[in-house]
Amino acid sequence: MIYYEKSVSSEQIYSGKIIKVRLDKVEMPDGSLADRELVEHPGGVGIVAVTDENEIILVKQFRKPFEKDIYEIPAGKLEPGEDHRECGIRELSEETGCRADSFEYLGFMYPSPGFLDEVTHIYLATGLHRGSAHPDDDEFLDVLYVPVKEVRQMIMDNRINDGKTVFGVLKALEFLKG
Amino acid sequence: MIYYEKSVSSEQIYSGKIIKVRLDKVEMPDGSLADRELVEHPGGVGIVAVTDENEIILVKQFRKPFEKDIYEIPAGKLEPGEDHRECGIRELSEETGCRADSFEYLGFMYPSPGFLDEVTHIYLATGLHRGSAHPDDDEFLDVLYVPVKEVRQMIMDNRINDGKTVFGVLKALEFLKG
Repeated sequence: MIYYEKSVSSEQIYSGKIIKVRLDKVEMPDGSLADRELVEHPGGVGIVAVTDENEIILVKQFRKPFEKDIYEIPAGKLEPGEDHRECGIRELSEETGCRADSFEYLGFMYPSPGFLDEVTHIYLATGLHRGSAHPDDDEFLDVLYVPVKEVRQMIMDNRINDGKTVFGVLKALEFLKG
Repeated sequence: MIYYEKSVSSEQIYSGKIIKVRLDKVEMPDGSLADRELVEHPGGVGIVAVTDENEIILVKQFRKPFEKDIYEIPAGKLEPGEDHRECGIRELSEETGCRADSFEYLGFMYPSPGFLDEVTHIYLATGLHRGSAHPDDDEFLDVLYVPVKEVRQMIMDNRINDGKTVFGVLKALEFLKG
């Protein structure tokens, strides 16, 4: 059965540098009206980069919403009109200095589909060649090479909590298993 | 190394029914200033419910940000002050009519840690007893019992894209494997 929520009005609340916020009034399947608070985001790309030594590259960086630094896979936001594959290759290079012989698409994630239109594309990068990182001016992060087995343990022990990282790593491990 | 971004000012942009939006000016590790657009969300709980017949319960519901219906595990937002375990038990009952003999904590997820403070707690529910669902007035959803093997295939084929669902199911399968 398909339920549809038709917008009967839409009010722009905020238009920022990264996000936009709007409030829609929608007609529910039973004809009643409901409010939908919606956040628009440009989306991004995360990269599960696995070395020939069976390590995964993690970055540790401060995240303001939690006032602490957390572990994530290398990732970044899409520039307007940017192809997500190109974005992934660019972000992996900027954050880690690596380029990859193989860059395979693992699918996309909706981080919080109830109110947020963000889409995060995930790639698996292998055949890595190290170079020097060149992060953006406002990016401060540590780059870590962690054995796959240890990353899996960090996920199971709740030391890695970032959605795209768990989504990407567990999917990559299933993919590599064949 | 720890990088910290201290807020030097904070401006409330929007305070809605579910989300709040604020704009912080932060001092970066090198002393420069940067803007941080931040969304506050009450957080929620997702439940990976596995039947004795080795099926996972999925719900299919319309999600306004994508203008389509998508597959997710049963889930819901935390009420103010609500314990996340109680919330999980309540949401599983409301959306599917099931109660569970065993309700194990699998950890928490940050859906989009760059700008969103939402935390999603994940539980594994087993020993299920079916009853009748009693969704909220503004919830319209279909409840599906899908074999574990098929859910795994739907994840690998990109037919399931919800972050908490992939995070929860793949982590639950690792957990059940031991």
